[in-house]
Amino acid sequence: MRLRNKPWAGEFIAEHSDYAISNPENYKGKWHEVFGNQNPIHIEVGTGKGQFLAGMSQQNPNINYIGIELFDSVIVAAIQKAVDKQLSNFKLLNVNAKNLTEYFDQGEIDRVYLNFSDPWPKVRHAKRRLTYKSFLQMYENVLVKGGEIHFKTDNQGLFEYSLISFSEYGLRLKYISLDLHKSDFEGNVMTEYEEKFSEKGQRIYRVEAKYMNE
Amino acid sequence: MRLRNKPWAGEFIAEHSDYAISNPENYKGKWHEVFGNQNPIHIEVGTGKGQFLAGMSQQNPNINYIGIELFDSVIVAAIQKAVDKQLSNFKLLNVNAKNLTEYFDQGEIDRVYLNFSDPWPKVRHAKRRLTYKSFLQMYENVLVKGGEIHFKTDNQGLFEYSLISFSEYGLRLKYISLDLHKSDFEGNVMTEYEEKFSEKGQRIYRVEAKYMNE
Ligand SMILES: C[S@@+](CC[C@H](N)C(=O)[O-])C[C@H]1O[C@@H](n2cnc3c(N)ncnc32)[C@H](O)[C@@H]1O
Ligand SMILES: C[S@@+](CC[C@H](N)C(=O)[O-])C[C@H]1O[C@@H](n2cnc3c(N)ncnc32)[C@H](O)[C@@H]1O
Repeated sequence: MRLRNKPWAGEFIAEHSDYAISNPENYKGKWHEVFGNQNPIHIEVGTGKGQFLAGMSQQNPNINYIGIELFDSVIVAAIQKAVDKQLSNFKLLNVNAKNLTEYFDQGEIDRVYLNFSDPWPKVRHAKRRLTYKSFLQMYENVLVKGGEIHFKTDNQGLFEYSLISFSEYGLRLKYISLDLHKSDFEGNVMTEYEEKFSEKGQRIYRVEAKYMNE
Repeated sequence: MRLRNKPWAGEFIAEHSDYAISNPENYKGKWHEVFGNQNPIHIEVGTGKGQFLAGMSQQNPNINYIGIELFDSVIVAAIQKAVDKQLSNFKLLNVNAKNLTEYFDQGEIDRVYLNFSDPWPKVRHAKRRLTYKSFLQMYENVLVKGGEIHFKTDNQGLFEYSLISFSEYGLRLKYISLDLHKSDFEGNVMTEYEEKFSEKGQRIYRVEAKYMNE
């Protein structure tokens, strides 16, 4: 993600508190109240500019989406999409996903999306990968029993690593595509990175993995 | 595998009974005696012309290899390799692998290799794929506890299917390469099909999966 310093980002986020939820720790266990319904809640960790979740929330009005993004200079573009399209089932959190359990209660989330997560290719940085076991543990803590992770990436090394990491953790692989855009998968919503890499002719990898804790 | 009718194949196999074991059901539970040592036994299901196991048995003299191939017209090429190189740790069985438990006792085998298995792309033929659950059950019956399957293919659909099938069966994925010839995997021995497909620029996929029954 190319970062441009945006001194106005903080103010922009504060002005759009209906979409960009500040102090999300106050809503732990109360996200269904925030959305005003009992629909399932799906989160994306590392939402970037929000193209994926904006598309998903239009495609699936009966699911609530929460995008989590560390950088205010990036999340503003996601907030702008929610504002422009008046998406009542799309919220954004400008926080570090490593603190997920401060924001969500056990079983409050139905699905975790990871899209084009930073690959951290060096072995000594493996712990930073969003599919490292400590993250899988954290997702398990906030997900319903039998909850799922849906993960897409163009990065072969990260995908290989993640399949092994899921398997070692005891997650069951439900679906795999090793070339998503040539597969029969329907309803795919592209992320910003997905558009960029697939235009360059890169394959997109996709997996659905399920916690076996039911 | 292109099949040419070889009327002399039966006679050739009978003449080389030191490498091509006839009536393998007689040796169930006694394969260590056949090899004359207690070294681990690895089998390949669908050995074809035997290039992989001939190479492996030269590379690893302390492992015993058994190649299983249905067609006599194909297995003769594998037998010829064993004869030419006088490989004492390489035997061949001209039988149908679906009857594995007639030839091997529980825990008699240490590893199963599957290389470029017939893809059977039609969904209604899924049961014929050598990574279908009934085959995984059969391999489990003849393998040691914690035994492994090592599988290579160029076929994307079969590889995707097999990862899911392994995962559903409860096998743990230990190693995955989505582009073997560009990976840092060492000591790879190419099969006939692997040479043919990689020359055409096809990627080779490889996985190691472990039974969690220890
Ligand atoms: C490579 S970008 C992908 C963006 C988007 N998902 C896409 O596919 O186009 C990864 C994003 O994850 C964000 N990110 C990485 N680690 C994070 C964390 N711990 N918490 C929140 N966001 C994070 C980064 O700031 C960046 O915007
Ligand atoms: C596509 S070829 C691959 C040969 C070799 N493994 C390679 O990679 O070059 C598959 C082989 O598996 C054999 N085969 C398929 N099903 C089999 C079975 N049930 N028992 C024994 N051999 C089988 C076929 O006869 C064929 O020779």
